[in-house]
Amino acid sequence: MRKQPIGVFDSGVGGLTVLAALHERLPHESLLYLGDMARLPYGNKSPQTIIRYARQAASVLISRGIKMLVVACNTASALALDELRRAFHPLPIVGVLEPGATAACAATRTGRIVVIATEATVREGAYTRAIQSLRPGAEILAVPCPLFVALAEEGWHSGAIVEAIAKQYLEPVFSRTSTDVLVLGCTHFPVLADTLAKVAGPGIQLVDSAHTTAQAVAEMLVRMDLAAEPRAQPASVHFMSTDAPERFARVAARFLPQNLRPYEVELIDL
Amino acid sequence: MRKQPIGVFDSGVGGLTVLAALHERLPHESLLYLGDMARLPYGNKSPQTIIRYARQAASVLISRGIKMLVVACNTASALALDELRRAFHPLPIVGVLEPGATAACAATRTGRIVVIATEATVREGAYTRAIQSLRPGAEILAVPCPLFVALAEEGWHSGAIVEAIAKQYLEPVFSRTSTDVLVLGCTHFPVLADTLAKVAGPGIQLVDSAHTTAQAVAEMLVRMDLAAEPRAQPASVHFMSTDAPERFARVAARFLPQNLRPYEVELIDL
Repeated sequence: MRKQPIGVFDSGVGGLTVLAALHERLPHESLLYLGDMARLPYGNKSPQTIIRYARQAASVLISRGIKMLVVACNTASALALDELRRAFHPLPIVGVLEPGATAACAATRTGRIVVIATEATVREGAYTRAIQSLRPGAEILAVPCPLFVALAEEGWHSGAIVEAIAKQYLEPVFSRTSTDVLVLGCTHFPVLADTLAKVAGPGIQLVDSAHTTAQAVAEMLVRMDLAAEPRAQPASVHFMSTDAPERFARVAARFLPQNLRPYEVELIDL
Repeated sequence: MRKQPIGVFDSGVGGLTVLAALHERLPHESLLYLGDMARLPYGNKSPQTIIRYARQAASVLISRGIKMLVVACNTASALALDELRRAFHPLPIVGVLEPGATAACAATRTGRIVVIATEATVREGAYTRAIQSLRPGAEILAVPCPLFVALAEEGWHSGAIVEAIAKQYLEPVFSRTSTDVLVLGCTHFPVLADTLAKVAGPGIQLVDSAHTTAQAVAEMLVRMDLAAEPRAQPASVHFMSTDAPERFARVAARFLPQNLRPYEVELIDL
């Protein structure tokens, strides 16, 4: 059981920011990544469709014998986590939303927090609930920024246009509230971090859920006695995509450090 | 047979620009529109996936008893039209790519044509072949503009950001070639036409396939003796979506004239 891989899934390549943090924090754990490239993005779809797609992705990873599932997609974490835990009980399942909320609460002094995310995540209100359960009285402003996903997927991470789009979304928000934390509530957004930090200005700290998710996974592995034995070499990372494996590999290179870039991506059907 | 509806399908709402042209040109024809909102966009997916999705969408429309199918999506027209004609023979099937090529050849004086489209359409080279079969010796430059789809879906149709993105894609092209025609080779792009015309400048004519597709459909109806009888009232238009019908209706309002806006959208599963 302890030798089995941890399954990680996302609508596409955004979740690779979480994969990279997991591999860095837990180099002895084998990882199995599934990107649902055929049906991305999830963030502008209905709850019913997001839940259905998440169940199908989880089923494939479970059929490969994983010991734990990480939902490395904020939209799926916001809309499908309860349903996945019910459907695949007792498999341990970690989402990125609660770790993101934890990171936000640790970073804020004022308790005024801005969350940027997809339309579906914002509509669901899940970040607001998760943060307020940790810090009652926190003021949360959640802002849908759907174009950021397209920019990240296209590899437009900085420059005048990305900055102008970030200003269009964020300047009205920052002028309305004096916040000190900006939560990147979508796993695509960390690749835009430099631009977002520039638009946010020096008084606002950017927070994403990648490292706190890796921390939550590490703690759960120990608690459930599921951690892999240390070994001389880092464990394997295997990549699967529901479409266009060569495109997956190309886009993944923008999200991953050199040593993790996929030289092979398995095409699967959901 | 002549009373049966014409089926129209697209990956989402872009094909509504074609639906509007069909309704204007052929007000007595009942129309059945299917937008595959659950899996859009098609333009960055693989040929195999695009063909599979197109077959599924066509099957649903055929099960509703259509007399003709219009593939109102350039990506599906470029990649799946031959396969659809083979699979569903002898159903008459009209794509938007050849009508777009016809419009481009009618508009150009110089024979130098720029086509903007999705990644998949450009990769397939279908526009270049279609234009050159009508006008051998034409010089065609095809440019993938994937962010335009996200902008159109988000309702960002004009303004400084849209203009900056259009310049980023198009200025290097216009500085390399002296063209007189810009083909909008994706059914999403006509909603950005004002901005694209501004960036292109007065010497370049914008061409889309909506009206030439309606013309091609009208001619095929007469040739095959399938045209509906004239009646006092315009015929019905029925809308179906594979996801989020209320979002479909909201976004559709940006693409359709007042009298065609859906007050009801049927949710279907593919």
